Amino acid sequence: MSAPFDEESYARAALTYLAEPGDLRLGALVRDRGAGSTLAAIKTGEFPGLAASGAAATRAMRRWQVRLAEVPSPGEVAGFCRAGIRVVCPGDPEWPAQLGDLGDAQPYALWLRGSADLRFSCLRSVSIVGSRAATAYGSYVASEFAASAAARGWAVISGGAYGVDAAAHRGALGAEGVTIAVLACGADISYPVGHKELLDAIAAQGVVVSEWPPGAHATRLRFLVRNRVIAALAPGTLVIEAGQRSGALNSARHARDLNRRLMAVPGPVTSDLSAGCHHIIREWQGTLVTSAAEVIECLSPIAATSGQAPPAVLGRDALDPETAAVLDALPSRGGMGPNRIGHRAGLEPGTVLRCLGALAAAGFAERCEQGWRLRRS
Amino acid sequence: MSAPFDEESYARAALTYLAEPGDLRLGALVRDRGAGSTLAAIKTGEFPGLAASGAAATRAMRRWQVRLAEVPSPGEVAGFCRAGIRVVCPGDPEWPAQLGDLGDAQPYALWLRGSADLRFSCLRSVSIVGSRAATAYGSYVASEFAASAAARGWAVISGGAYGVDAAAHRGALGAEGVTIAVLACGADISYPVGHKELLDAIAAQGVVVSEWPPGAHATRLRFLVRNRVIAALAPGTLVIEAGQRSGALNSARHARDLNRRLMAVPGPVTSDLSAGCHHIIREWQGTLVTSAAEVIECLSPIAATSGQAPPAVLGRDALDPETAAVLDALPSRGGMGPNRIGHRAGLEPGTVLRCLGALAAAGFAERCEQGWRLRRS
Repeated sequence: MSAPFDEESYARAALTYLAEPGDLRLGALVRDRGAGSTLAAIKTGEFPGLAASGAAATRAMRRWQVRLAEVPSPGEVAGFCRAGIRVVCPGDPEWPAQLGDLGDAQPYALWLRGSADLRFSCLRSVSIVGSRAATAYGSYVASEFAASAAARGWAVISGGAYGVDAAAHRGALGAEGVTIAVLACGADISYPVGHKELLDAIAAQGVVVSEWPPGAHATRLRFLVRNRVIAALAPGTLVIEAGQRSGALNSARHARDLNRRLMAVPGPVTSDLSAGCHHIIREWQGTLVTSAAEVIECLSPIAATSGQAPPAVLGRDALDPETAAVLDALPSRGGMGPNRIGHRAGLEPGTVLRCLGALAAAGFAERCEQGWRLRRS
Repeated sequence: MSAPFDEESYARAALTYLAEPGDLRLGALVRDRGAGSTLAAIKTGEFPGLAASGAAATRAMRRWQVRLAEVPSPGEVAGFCRAGIRVVCPGDPEWPAQLGDLGDAQPYALWLRGSADLRFSCLRSVSIVGSRAATAYGSYVASEFAASAAARGWAVISGGAYGVDAAAHRGALGAEGVTIAVLACGADISYPVGHKELLDAIAAQGVVVSEWPPGAHATRLRFLVRNRVIAALAPGTLVIEAGQRSGALNSARHARDLNRRLMAVPGPVTSDLSAGCHHIIREWQGTLVTSAAEVIECLSPIAATSGQAPPAVLGRDALDPETAAVLDALPSRGGMGPNRIGHRAGLEPGTVLRCLGALAAAGFAERCEQGWRLRRS
């Protein structure tokens, strides 16, 4: 996003203001005609073939047009980026390609706040979900599993809510790992309010993700829509305490439908909050897991490992100047910490981290024990 | 056992004094030559072909001969029967034919103390096993599941030990159901001593079972040998709390090897006593169950139901006089309680119950809401 904002990316960012995520009709239009011409058609109301598509299509168009006044200018979007909230779109180095499994329901764009690279972090990640009203047992297990997974280099994805979500995020943060909060409101909004410090800590060490633009507020429906992204980002979803009709089961159903690995932690059969976990194991063929090691064992065959990172997907010429500077500063052997790299490249640590993530996602850089280095091809 | 004691049955009873159960060499001899001639050969030491069978066969023969002096006379065995401990052998109406799945390791005979018919009771039964050092959770679940299963007409089989075993027996007794204790000592011995009243209650309402003769004491090895009978008697085994190297896992392994259904109750992953249960679900494809209803759902397809009782396997002429008297006293419609049947037949209630069990196992009688009646063919 340091690079000039191209028209298609701007249009995708604008669409997040006009329509709720997961709108299959809009998703199909963007797929067929591109975001730029879809946005232009919504603005002008002139859409070839719209009338022939029936009354529902016309109604949808009117629904999108209602919010046209809220769409910021390209300069305003660039302002968000300077303020620490970047937009990532399909095709960008940081875009997690696995979201394509959502088909026409994939996000139009993602708004990110934080230092970690989303695509790189998700290569080895697990989504941990569960009840907001978790028991001491559920919170303990979420925190322990997340800390243990994070300590082994696995990013922990969750929803930023009270209970299991918060315990999982905190466990990963405590282990100095990467954690990703996928919110049902703008990436700049603290919801719940009591999680302001937690979400800031996640942004500092990981990344806060939203399909909604800055300023958007959470609604009941948005939580459910958001769950498909939590399930899609990781190779597997782990449920820790969930009632029989909980949002966590909704995430689990998405994971199952997306052919992600589905895991659940058992608990006392006398606890209503373990009923959802037992349901997943009994009825949905979810894997019963009793430790973070078993979670990783379940996911390792399908997650990318550092030794099997994807090959470079971009030429050096496609890199923006800051990323190119970080690439030039990287050692080819040994390893170097982000601060020293920043010193060499003349860049802020936050910028360095983001560029390192992009370089890792693009196959130029890799993590090692001493920090970062050029990836050996 | 009210019938005159035939030579083969007496020989089988005698063999339980001479050899430990599960002795495959003795099992094969009994299968090939019959119990009577095997006993005679051990007594005389004259065994055609013994020398040709090698040194190990000769050593085994000497081992069996060591205990010859302990074998009671036929009259003494009949005395046990009068004292309430009966011998049941393969082919007897009360013999559970499913023990044949143990092959040459099947018991030579079983010593029973109690009112319930073993074969009939096992038709719809579940073995419930688990840790002696059960937590409050494990004891609660064992008791609840057993009570609920017993209330639905399922017999509960266990090992009479502290912890899960005792909770399962007590749950079944409290629901006025049938429960079966398979001991690693004589059916007349209270082990543990603190369970004397429990074992007497089981005998009064169900049946206490042993492969060892009256007076035999439990040893560590006998507990393990006994476990195969617990697993073999029921169509399925349920494990409630078991450590990773527990006797309950030994029973579970027998159940798996015998193609019985294997079930386990999950618990907190933070509890060592649930580790065995989770191992069964993860590694042995055991079914996770959270209620007695799920246990019954798992077993129903393979257990005999009252509507699918086995056909009559004996002619009326084969019945002993007491059993024949009970059969004559049975109503063909409605139903009658054991006390009224005893009044009609001129027999004690305990005798009536045993005869009813034999009649049920043989396909002549069936339970109904009002008590017992002739089985409709």
